[in-house]
Amino acid sequence: MFIADAWYMGAWADELADAPVSRRICNQPLVLYRSKEGEVATLYDSCCHRGAPLSVGSVIDQGLQCGYHGLVFGNDGVCVHIPGQAQIPRKARVRSYPTVEKDQMIWVWMGDPEKADPALILDYPFHNDTGNWPHSHGMYEIDTTYQMMMDNLMDLTHLGYVHAKNVGGKAATLVEAEMDVITTEKGVDVKRWMPDCEPPPTYLKCVDLPEKIERWQEMEFIAPSAVLQWTGAVGKGQGAREDFSKRVGGFSMRLYHFATPVTETSCYYFWSAAHNHLLGDPDATENLRKEVEIALEEDKWIVQAQQDRIRETGDDWLVDVRSDKARVAMRHALKKMEAESGPLAAGPVVTDS
Amino acid sequence: MFIADAWYMGAWADELADAPVSRRICNQPLVLYRSKEGEVATLYDSCCHRGAPLSVGSVIDQGLQCGYHGLVFGNDGVCVHIPGQAQIPRKARVRSYPTVEKDQMIWVWMGDPEKADPALILDYPFHNDTGNWPHSHGMYEIDTTYQMMMDNLMDLTHLGYVHAKNVGGKAATLVEAEMDVITTEKGVDVKRWMPDCEPPPTYLKCVDLPEKIERWQEMEFIAPSAVLQWTGAVGKGQGAREDFSKRVGGFSMRLYHFATPVTETSCYYFWSAAHNHLLGDPDATENLRKEVEIALEEDKWIVQAQQDRIRETGDDWLVDVRSDKARVAMRHALKKMEAESGPLAAGPVVTDS
Amino acid sequence: MFIADAWYMGAWADELADAPVSRRICNQPLVLYRSKEGEVATLYDSCCHRGAPLSVGSVIDQGLQCGYHGLVFGNDGVCVHIPGQAQIPRKARVRSYPTVEKDQMIWVWMGDPEKADPALILDYPFHNDTGNWPHSHGMYEIDTTYQMMMDNLMDLTHLGYVHAKNVGGKAATLVEAEMDVITTEKGVDVKRWMPDCEPPPTYLKCVDLPEKIERWQEMEFIAPSAVLQWTGAVGKGQGAREDFSKRVGGFSMRLYHFATPVTETSCYYFWSAAHNHLLGDPDATENLRKEVEIALEEDKWIVQAQQDRIRETGDDWLVDVRSDKARVAMRHALKKMEAESGPLAAGPVVTDS
Repeated sequence: MFIADAWYMGAWADELADAPVSRRICNQPLVLYRSKEGEVATLYDSCCHRGAPLSVGSVIDQGLQCGYHGLVFGNDGVCVHIPGQAQIPRKARVRSYPTVEKDQMIWVWMGDPEKADPALILDYPFHNDTGNWPHSHGMYEIDTTYQMMMDNLMDLTHLGYVHAKNVGGKAATLVEAEMDVITTEKGVDVKRWMPDCEPPPTYLKCVDLPEKIERWQEMEFIAPSAVLQWTGAVGKGQGAREDFSKRVGGFSMRLYHFATPVTETSCYYFWSAAHNHLLGDPDATENLRKEVEIALEEDKWIVQAQQDRIRETGDDWLVDVRSDKARVAMRHALKKMEAESGPLAAGPVVTDS
Repeated sequence: MFIADAWYMGAWADELADAPVSRRICNQPLVLYRSKEGEVATLYDSCCHRGAPLSVGSVIDQGLQCGYHGLVFGNDGVCVHIPGQAQIPRKARVRSYPTVEKDQMIWVWMGDPEKADPALILDYPFHNDTGNWPHSHGMYEIDTTYQMMMDNLMDLTHLGYVHAKNVGGKAATLVEAEMDVITTEKGVDVKRWMPDCEPPPTYLKCVDLPEKIERWQEMEFIAPSAVLQWTGAVGKGQGAREDFSKRVGGFSMRLYHFATPVTETSCYYFWSAAHNHLLGDPDATENLRKEVEIALEEDKWIVQAQQDRIRETGDDWLVDVRSDKARVAMRHALKKMEAESGPLAAGPVVTDS
Repeated sequence: MFIADAWYMGAWADELADAPVSRRICNQPLVLYRSKEGEVATLYDSCCHRGAPLSVGSVIDQGLQCGYHGLVFGNDGVCVHIPGQAQIPRKARVRSYPTVEKDQMIWVWMGDPEKADPALILDYPFHNDTGNWPHSHGMYEIDTTYQMMMDNLMDLTHLGYVHAKNVGGKAATLVEAEMDVITTEKGVDVKRWMPDCEPPPTYLKCVDLPEKIERWQEMEFIAPSAVLQWTGAVGKGQGAREDFSKRVGGFSMRLYHFATPVTETSCYYFWSAAHNHLLGDPDATENLRKEVEIALEEDKWIVQAQQDRIRETGDDWLVDVRSDKARVAMRHALKKMEAESGPLAAGPVVTDS
């Protein structure tokens, strides 16, 4: 079951520069595009004439034009032009979805349009603050549920096994980290602290660090499927845990994660990697991107392997352990949101209109 | 549901030159072959001994030999030889299908064999008239229903959107064409006329034409799934609409289309492209083939994309427009033929014999 | 339905040298591995924490460690270590399967563990007798039932059609072979004798032989799915049929075949090819391997094509012929074993413990 009453990330803003983009969200085929006026819009991705995907059409002055027989649609999904005929039948329309552009991202609302309040969209100003937080970004399509993608982020002990050679480092360090887990109105806050440890390989590839460091991992889960992560390290003993002004001169990275459900068992995994270290160094952003992509490929590989098994066995037989604390809190937040959600805006047309 | 009582094109005659050919028609696995005596035949493609496909066997003097343990079958599907034993059980046989070779094509009857009248097979003498109509031909397997392949041909306004850069040209020209649609005993005749327009790119690549032309598109749909097309152009004002003798000195092409159902949602699309312009020019046939294949690939791409959506949404919600006139008449002809058809000759053996 | 109470070959012993191996047997995902102490073991291939496959983990001193969050399991499937917590819940375990290493092969018991008697595992000492029987070995995953893989071996008349250009030779020779079929306690013994024939191409590639040979094919089927084959030839008239001491100086090969069910319609096909001719010639083993692999690829191709058809038509309509004698006896042995078998040890955990 999908959580319908939610804003899902549908695309990076720069993906809509040249042509419409085809996406499947909550198992609905969608076309996302930017009109000639610059507005972003999302329609059900099927022309009401002969069903062809509108995403293989093109944006013209009047709207989004189907590439098969040329019908044109407005951002509200209403057909505004049928080649060869003056009158447009009232039924000539497709479903449109509330769409908002914010912080370099395109957001789509999949539930009752009346409830689509843009104020509910998360804030991530770092995407716009390219001076202090230059970033790279991308997207993976992953054959696992979006929930298992969130699970992966809520239990960072996996870093010592899956990512030991890059962003993780020694397993024991990560397993023994101090951890605070707080359930919030929006989701779950997780703070992890390793006051006396060695830097992981990725940190050393990006910056110079002493042999012993203070290391932090702060994860803000926002339901249904965002994780805003600030992670980094400075030399041991600087007291960067509470005093953020001490979080400079070392390695400092903000990772943005958003998992949008494609089908019941697959998702888009949007990510960005911003850094606050080595500002002004043109190579620093690229170096970080390379390291992050290696780690994300490792995540993709393990969660897909996991999904293969869960698909076959279900998850009733699984046993929670101590490191699952944040993950369990996250799943509770999802259950709550699921219970409160209305039905999905599903199908090519709004049938009761 | 398949229309069983019909002749379907199963292969080009030249495909049977060297070895048996495996085809699936109306979801029946078939082997088409030419015996050493030169007769064409079609059997259910599975040996009655251990089930291996006969299409991986070979034609020998006595008949079609299975490539697994060497059983041999006659054109009627009766086993005529079992290696290592003299007696052949009465049950050692597979279903055979009425098969006819005509106009360089192989035709298979999928319904009650008693109704298989060769006189019902369409005439297409142009395949034999290589002096006046030299041609190339081929086949695509397409993931869409054969009906949607016919839909595509019955609404030529798609030429201005899907094939604008080759056989189509300007969308407005094609949308504004005069159109006559006549329901016939065999199907539907469509005549489209553009008396004053510019030549599309393909025409100019093949022949010299003035800036303004008369252009015709004549499509004869023959149920269940043939379209015989004559299309071309001469200089504007020559009066080629009714006087066929004026249809010389320009671009003149006959396209043959036949869509044979493979499964309920896929088909073989057989095509040939003949031309009456530049007779005697060895490059003209090849130039036309290249242009036609580009356009057919575009068709394949759009109809498969369409099928992806229709598979998910059904087609009840779609809205007919003015340009669907011929398409709707074609679908009516199909419904009629479907209602009149008997059951399919399905399965490896005739069970009640 | 799988025969559960049986030893199935899960791997070649040398496959476990470096890392755990993922296999699916009787549709159960399994991990086979060798512990640091050198014991071989098989577990259900899914960690009881978050379900990740244990086969992507690694063997450490304490046991098999999951590659996701580091849990460690003993050979009995009991979790022995959870990173970050001292207490291990009683439910933290996965199913283990009786596993035995014998004659360079790893055997897994898929039924009631109490019935897992290693004495039931077939003997194949030739794998250890590398002085007299040097061999190569391998495995194919094949999209056909293991029963049809056995069928293929029980009717060697296919050699003249499928393998005419390598191990088979003339079809008539193989069809006319004398054949003894004896039902045994373990399965079926088949002895085939061609006292006066020409050598097949493979034999001539491997050794020198006269124009006329005595040729033998002896197949011991051991239920559920082994065939131990001794096949070869010496010059005509040497009397090698009963007097095995005469089976020297020609071509002499022992083929080992084992088909382990993966799913209901696919199998692993393990094979080895040993030879007793040209002992001490380093190229002889390699030459034989090349020839055998060509023939096995041909088998794979034909049995998969056969399976494609049987999947669609079933096999009720098929007609047995004279050459099916051994095959029919083999199928009877399988039916008997199937009737006597208890249930499969299925699922990630033993639910009633």
